[in-house]
Amino acid sequence: MSGWLDEIRWTADGLVPVVAQEAGSGQVLMVAWMNREALALTAEEGYAVYWSRSRGRLWRKGEASGHRQKVLEIRLDCDEDVVLLKVEQAGGIACHTGRHHCFYRVLKDGRWETVEPVLKSPDSIYGA
Amino acid sequence: MSGWLDEIRWTADGLVPVVAQEAGSGQVLMVAWMNREALALTAEEGYAVYWSRSRGRLWRKGEASGHRQKVLEIRLDCDEDVVLLKVEQAGGIACHTGRHHCFYRVLKDGRWETVEPVLKSPDSIYGA
Repeated sequence: MSGWLDEIRWTADGLVPVVAQEAGSGQVLMVAWMNREALALTAEEGYAVYWSRSRGRLWRKGEASGHRQKVLEIRLDCDEDVVLLKVEQAGGIACHTGRHHCFYRVLKDGRWETVEPVLKSPDSIYGA
Repeated sequence: MSGWLDEIRWTADGLVPVVAQEAGSGQVLMVAWMNREALALTAEEGYAVYWSRSRGRLWRKGEASGHRQKVLEIRLDCDEDVVLLKVEQAGGIACHTGRHHCFYRVLKDGRWETVEPVLKSPDSIYGA
């Protein structure tokens, strides 16, 4: 039952970029990466498991913060090289900065302007 | 006025992944890549310009199909390594398969099931 994993065109590093979109709001929450094991676990457990490139290990989203992502749907694009998840975001916070989502900066007049509030301080999320 | 481009953490290949989201529907249409020139042109022209990795050249989205993407907003994520565009999709077709968007396959019972219709045949979009 893992043939569906073989259809994905993994990068040379064995990864695929994953877009997490909030099911209710349609908001794009974040983009992260998965390897084969992470995607298999995501499908199996029903919660998003990513591959942390910086830490070089599996990363169960919310393992430290509690902000897990319940996965309602897993989609694949036409080139088989991008995955889209429809998720429910626990705590309403996807971003490690304590914001609802990671795309909180907008290009305005030639600079990036922060337009989304911090809902919870990272210190209180992760411990100071 | 190009300092905003320096804030992006480009890959070793000088690229950044870009999510195109339809402004009206919230639908994630596609994910593609831009280099510095493509992103600068996108901001300047107000229509999405990508870097085609397969063709090794700039790709003005819609140059062959007419299915251009008018860019309403350009956002950057917390790690400065993913860009999110809010766009209006000309013709209502973002995918080269003639579908509204590229994420037309859903994982069901261990296989990818196509759940979105072809709105226009690729032959009639690109010429047979």
